[in-house]
Amino acid sequence: MRHNDEYTITQAVIARHAQAGDARLREVMTSLVQHLHAFAREVQLTEAEWREGLRWLSEAGSAARPHELPLLSDVLGLSMLVTARSQRRAAGCTESTLAAAAAPCATPEDHAAAEPCYVRGQVRSQGGTPLPGARVQVWPCAAADGRTELPCDGAGRYRATTPLAQPCAVPHDGPVGRLLAALGRHPWRPAHLNFAVRAEGHRPLATQVFRDGDRYLETDAVFGVRRSLIAPWVRHESGPGPDGRPGPYHTLDFDFVLEAA
Amino acid sequence: MRHNDEYTITQAVIARHAQAGDARLREVMTSLVQHLHAFAREVQLTEAEWREGLRWLSEAGSAARPHELPLLSDVLGLSMLVTARSQRRAAGCTESTLAAAAAPCATPEDHAAAEPCYVRGQVRSQGGTPLPGARVQVWPCAAADGRTELPCDGAGRYRATTPLAQPCAVPHDGPVGRLLAALGRHPWRPAHLNFAVRAEGHRPLATQVFRDGDRYLETDAVFGVRRSLIAPWVRHESGPGPDGRPGPYHTLDFDFVLEAA
Repeated sequence: MRHNDEYTITQAVIARHAQAGDARLREVMTSLVQHLHAFAREVQLTEAEWREGLRWLSEAGSAARPHELPLLSDVLGLSMLVTARSQRRAAGCTESTLAAAAAPCATPEDHAAAEPCYVRGQVRSQGGTPLPGARVQVWPCAAADGRTELPCDGAGRYRATTPLAQPCAVPHDGPVGRLLAALGRHPWRPAHLNFAVRAEGHRPLATQVFRDGDRYLETDAVFGVRRSLIAPWVRHESGPGPDGRPGPYHTLDFDFVLEAA
Repeated sequence: MRHNDEYTITQAVIARHAQAGDARLREVMTSLVQHLHAFAREVQLTEAEWREGLRWLSEAGSAARPHELPLLSDVLGLSMLVTARSQRRAAGCTESTLAAAAAPCATPEDHAAAEPCYVRGQVRSQGGTPLPGARVQVWPCAAADGRTELPCDGAGRYRATTPLAQPCAVPHDGPVGRLLAALGRHPWRPAHLNFAVRAEGHRPLATQVFRDGDRYLETDAVFGVRRSLIAPWVRHESGPGPDGRPGPYHTLDFDFVLEAA
């Protein structure tokens, strides 16, 4: 094995890991090395490109930008791929998507000034039984506040008031933003609300509900939209809204079906 | 394209890059996304592993450790693969290897105290013609000093004095070192000297010459050894050496054949 060319080196590296104590690590690294090498051969990666790639990755990984590498995973669809695999739900259950997305959105407008939206719905089990003990968190993108957990009522119903969801952009002032621009891509996500729903005996659900009609539904920068998670925000011209405030206001009705644990 | 599962998402991401102005960037990113996604599917990457991978990569990329990501490329054989591709030489010419390696070795012993080694040889063109105008740099691993460029004499011959080359370790006190340990791998490189040789009208050559008999020749941590670059360091018990110093001393004879530019 002393003399490796660009083809034989792949097997040489893999063979070197034969003694790894952790079988799973060996499995992951074998696949990683195969794909990394195949990529470099396939595109005939030049020395200059390899250097530039390492420089880019070092900049993205620097401690000053803690979100860049998770964001890279988001915009390359890897985060959604992993979520789709690991958060798959039985038919009839509410789907999961990137509510635990790696990189938060930046809110482009003042959410507090937006028209209010009254969100309400029911949490049920697969069989259709309401889950009165369920708890629901709902928050607009990028808002760390307002993540209080709401208990459901005796019929498994929840109610929340949020600002009207607006399209929001993933951070794009760093290396990932430059990459998106070079790729002719925009950084926008369609308007959505984040939800975290849990109930005893059921798998916790992290998901997002997307505003029907949004112009970015087809081109979400992080590929998180799922058909079953698109819902209408209904506008009501005149009040009073459910909490007595004057109009205009919006309502969103969305039920959740949790999978048994 | 609104609804992507773990399989269809790959094509969705690639399609998003159709408008990239730079055709080469589009080509590289298409292959990268395909291999990244194929890797995640192949090993059925879990959310916890994905998170740990991103955390590891962020730590490796942090500005406090500028060598970790290049070092990762070295120990996974990517650096050598790229070198083998881009620095291929015609038959009969001296081969290139990782002299421009991304991450420097740490010298484990005091090189200055080592027995001296007198290095000498000739620089020739492919046809066998000596190149009197050639210039040779030679330096032990990790030594930034002693990299003065030596002019060849009228017969294309160079001479240099170096400390005896010793095995050296790649940096292994960070994330890459932990990875190597988990993979059951050592961080050692076989004893070698670095050379940079140039002459007008010829491709510059960056390479390493490895000490025959070294215990790490078969398991170089960065896969840089090439059969044609292994040479004997001959020990001479008694002096005086070429510069008059008493023995013991070593000699290394190594000629270089440069490819026409």
